[in-house]
Amino acid sequence: MVATVAANCAIGVDVGGTKVLVAAIDESLGVHHRVTQSSRGLDGTGLLDRLAEMVREAADAAPGEVVGAGFGIAGIFDGKAGVIASSPHLPLAGLPFEAMMAERLEVPVSVDNDGNTAMLAEWRHGAAKGAGDALMLTVGTGIGGGMVVGGRLERGSSRGGAEFGHMVIEFDGPLCECGGHGHFEWYASGNAIGRAGQELAAREPGCPLALGAADRPLTGALVTEMAHDGDGGCIDAIAQVGGRLGQGMVSLVNAFNPELIVVGGGAIAAGELLLGPARAVVESEALPSLGTNVSIVPAHFGADAGMVGAATLAFEAAGA
Amino acid sequence: MVATVAANCAIGVDVGGTKVLVAAIDESLGVHHRVTQSSRGLDGTGLLDRLAEMVREAADAAPGEVVGAGFGIAGIFDGKAGVIASSPHLPLAGLPFEAMMAERLEVPVSVDNDGNTAMLAEWRHGAAKGAGDALMLTVGTGIGGGMVVGGRLERGSSRGGAEFGHMVIEFDGPLCECGGHGHFEWYASGNAIGRAGQELAAREPGCPLALGAADRPLTGALVTEMAHDGDGGCIDAIAQVGGRLGQGMVSLVNAFNPELIVVGGGAIAAGELLLGPARAVVESEALPSLGTNVSIVPAHFGADAGMVGAATLAFEAAGA
Repeated sequence: MVATVAANCAIGVDVGGTKVLVAAIDESLGVHHRVTQSSRGLDGTGLLDRLAEMVREAADAAPGEVVGAGFGIAGIFDGKAGVIASSPHLPLAGLPFEAMMAERLEVPVSVDNDGNTAMLAEWRHGAAKGAGDALMLTVGTGIGGGMVVGGRLERGSSRGGAEFGHMVIEFDGPLCECGGHGHFEWYASGNAIGRAGQELAAREPGCPLALGAADRPLTGALVTEMAHDGDGGCIDAIAQVGGRLGQGMVSLVNAFNPELIVVGGGAIAAGELLLGPARAVVESEALPSLGTNVSIVPAHFGADAGMVGAATLAFEAAGA
Repeated sequence: MVATVAANCAIGVDVGGTKVLVAAIDESLGVHHRVTQSSRGLDGTGLLDRLAEMVREAADAAPGEVVGAGFGIAGIFDGKAGVIASSPHLPLAGLPFEAMMAERLEVPVSVDNDGNTAMLAEWRHGAAKGAGDALMLTVGTGIGGGMVVGGRLERGSSRGGAEFGHMVIEFDGPLCECGGHGHFEWYASGNAIGRAGQELAAREPGCPLALGAADRPLTGALVTEMAHDGDGGCIDAIAQVGGRLGQGMVSLVNAFNPELIVVGGGAIAAGELLLGPARAVVESEALPSLGTNVSIVPAHFGADAGMVGAATLAFEAAGA
């Protein structure tokens, strides 16, 4: 009797500043069970409990053996101290996340920054496959990052690097949630798209966006939806944020000389409405020989890159 | 009869935006003959001729066999095209420098960006010796850079990376010589110290700096000299530039998570007057776990780092 062997699975978890994405993912990257919940309104322990519950739900629905759970977390790791040092959008600062999650789950736990897991997914299987020098920007609540330098995924001296959202693009600029000022993510995140929309609605109370926001929150998602429907004001609002995204990319291109910048995160739903203006700024503002050597592309895995990379991390930890 | 074998030497050449430093350097890094000339007022061929002449002068004075000449050049390399793609402060854009210099000299020629050679000197022999993740800033006419990431000197996908002077620290800021806007080097170079001094002298025509500038040019060097002599206005001018230097370092710390930032170039003559204010900004503005993990130190080789690294490059090319 020949048994049908079901594909091994890993549970990928993307813990973002607004929501948590979880799925059971097989080795061919098939997504088998997807769970989404808010990451807001809980304390650290509450969030850990919710994450464990979501992982168990996905594991129960997985079509094969679950070899591990990988977590990509919107937080700054301190590899020396073994904790999440800070997490401006999440209540996880100071927590030894990996150890606490291992207590809650029966499967092996792997943990990394969410920008790093997104970079891993795109580098192993997606838009940056095989690249020697590539950067990842996950544009969502804030901006996360990941970096492949000289053919290796690099994390910096204490595992806290690639925090591109916290580069200064305007000194003495607005206060960032991290305590710094004028940071890239303030100008170019999904939140920034929402803010540009709010400014538009305040300026033109009769505009379609302002009317559309009467019965739902005016977020970046709404602005993006209406921009895709052809609303000129919303298209302009996204273009303005795309231009700022390009300014931060100029810093990245001139510093890293990457062949590729991959853009994922929730805000990539805006697609070329966001990337087109960013590309135009890089073309006109980056050092010419570097600006012409770089491609700026959407994540192959779109807003799922962090989650798919978290599962990839778990597979690699299991030796798969 | 036992012959006394003289130490092998390499000629190190630092081609900066204002001046050229050349020396014959032995394998123990002893400096045997030093030549300094202006890099200004010549076209590309004229500058190449002058550099070759300076190398020959140093080689003639070298106490042992000359194994090669290394050049650290303030220009952006295009490794794919084999040329210096651009060099805002030098007339070398578009030239295949290595090939043209090899025609002029009898010894092997090695060429790299001057920030990379400075990083090489400090990483092999100086302040960053043995570091896994370290960055170099050469603060002179502009700001050059070098990067050690994951234990390797990295240059980016087309050998043009680590151009930290061209990171955006204020979008829509003043025009940079490279064509971009609001770049780091506009705010935090030796030129920026000179500009801060000129503003001070214009504001207070009777101040010691303004009087001191009556019979010599008001440059960053003069401001630095008078600051070391205790002039409060000049100390403040350097502190202002040091603060901007810190803003760019915040971007670098949050992106690279280095254990060390080494500062060289002519402006490091200002020493702690420049680095102290920079450190204070990094402490208050960088992500806490990254800002506390980084040391900001002067180059062991001071303003000679680029030149010593160029010689190191030549030694390594010769297999020494």
